[in-house]
Amino acid sequence: MREKSETLPKATAKRLPLYLRYLNMLNDSGVQRIKSNEFSEITQVPSATIRRDFSHLGELGRSGYGYDVPYLIEVFDRILNTEEEKRIALVGFGNLGKALKHNNFRRNANLNIVCVFDNDPAIAGKEIEGVMVYPMDRFSEIVEKEGIKVAISTVPSKYSQSAIDEIVKGGITAILNFAPDRVSVPPHVHMQYIDLTTELQTLIYFDENYSQVFSSK
Amino acid sequence: MREKSETLPKATAKRLPLYLRYLNMLNDSGVQRIKSNEFSEITQVPSATIRRDFSHLGELGRSGYGYDVPYLIEVFDRILNTEEEKRIALVGFGNLGKALKHNNFRRNANLNIVCVFDNDPAIAGKEIEGVMVYPMDRFSEIVEKEGIKVAISTVPSKYSQSAIDEIVKGGITAILNFAPDRVSVPPHVHMQYIDLTTELQTLIYFDENYSQVFSSK
Repeated sequence: MREKSETLPKATAKRLPLYLRYLNMLNDSGVQRIKSNEFSEITQVPSATIRRDFSHLGELGRSGYGYDVPYLIEVFDRILNTEEEKRIALVGFGNLGKALKHNNFRRNANLNIVCVFDNDPAIAGKEIEGVMVYPMDRFSEIVEKEGIKVAISTVPSKYSQSAIDEIVKGGITAILNFAPDRVSVPPHVHMQYIDLTTELQTLIYFDENYSQVFSSK
Repeated sequence: MREKSETLPKATAKRLPLYLRYLNMLNDSGVQRIKSNEFSEITQVPSATIRRDFSHLGELGRSGYGYDVPYLIEVFDRILNTEEEKRIALVGFGNLGKALKHNNFRRNANLNIVCVFDNDPAIAGKEIEGVMVYPMDRFSEIVEKEGIKVAISTVPSKYSQSAIDEIVKGGITAILNFAPDRVSVPPHVHMQYIDLTTELQTLIYFDENYSQVFSSK
């Protein structure tokens, strides 16, 4: 079997986690085989796109037979390297930070928030709700000791740039940022913004202007 | 001036809130005029896409001159109807619900969470952190009285379908859902899922496989 993940188009790569999520749901429901048009209905991705995406990954299915669900999961798990534990630092332990820490990406047992930082003097250096909260000046030291590769920032826009600067200084290259205002990072750092206001505005616009169903992603 | 928002392609419509956000940031910084290639650098949307998107909205710019920022904001505000208050019901008042309520989409003064629901007997029917928390059996009554058109659900996957059923029964057609597992809704209901695990997996995949900068949206 060919696996060409190193040459995956970015648009394909961006859809892999979504595909994997629905494949796991199908597998949990006992579905062993799926055709691209059925998978299209579930994922809301056009079936031609699905077939093209899967074709980049090698010979995963046969015409008229469909795709083998457990096998797809195996391949996608390998490509996405989901078996390896991803150790995550959470920066900002307000309500949103607490929600993320307590939920801790339950659907993927290998995504783990292993330490929490906040500069608020009311909580920094203390154990809050069973979680040790470190001040940011210990970020580099702890991140190195804990082997952390990913950070999530829930720090509000006002303090976002200085928090991100500390995160980058600690050698982290993958950051999920809940403050939507753009911050400066070196070109080797991957920053993903979660912008809930924009998501909500888009939803409302479609609700007001399109009568048919609009699928988000 | 032509305004053709009723015929906007969905892909264009989905980018409007993002454009508007950056235009407001530019305006706040005193920038009055912007060329498509400059706007492309800020938004990470290809400049050909920007020009094509803007062309759907009428004569917004002149070649070589660029686009007038305050005018673009005016047009986009009108299309997105951002001046009108959007009254929102929040369902689920755990940590994530509290974060959303207390932040309340601060960047858009017209997005307002005006009432909060939760069926947890420990908080339902009580005032929690200054917020009255209603039980779900009062959803339809209160939503009608308050003129609410949009709901946000932070209810965990396990209870998501029954919460969404109540929301739909209350006549809401636009729902932002933080539980990523798909639920059934009638075809006229617009559901947008926020799936943080998938966002994080995508980020990590790109960090591990692409050395150059990856822009999220």
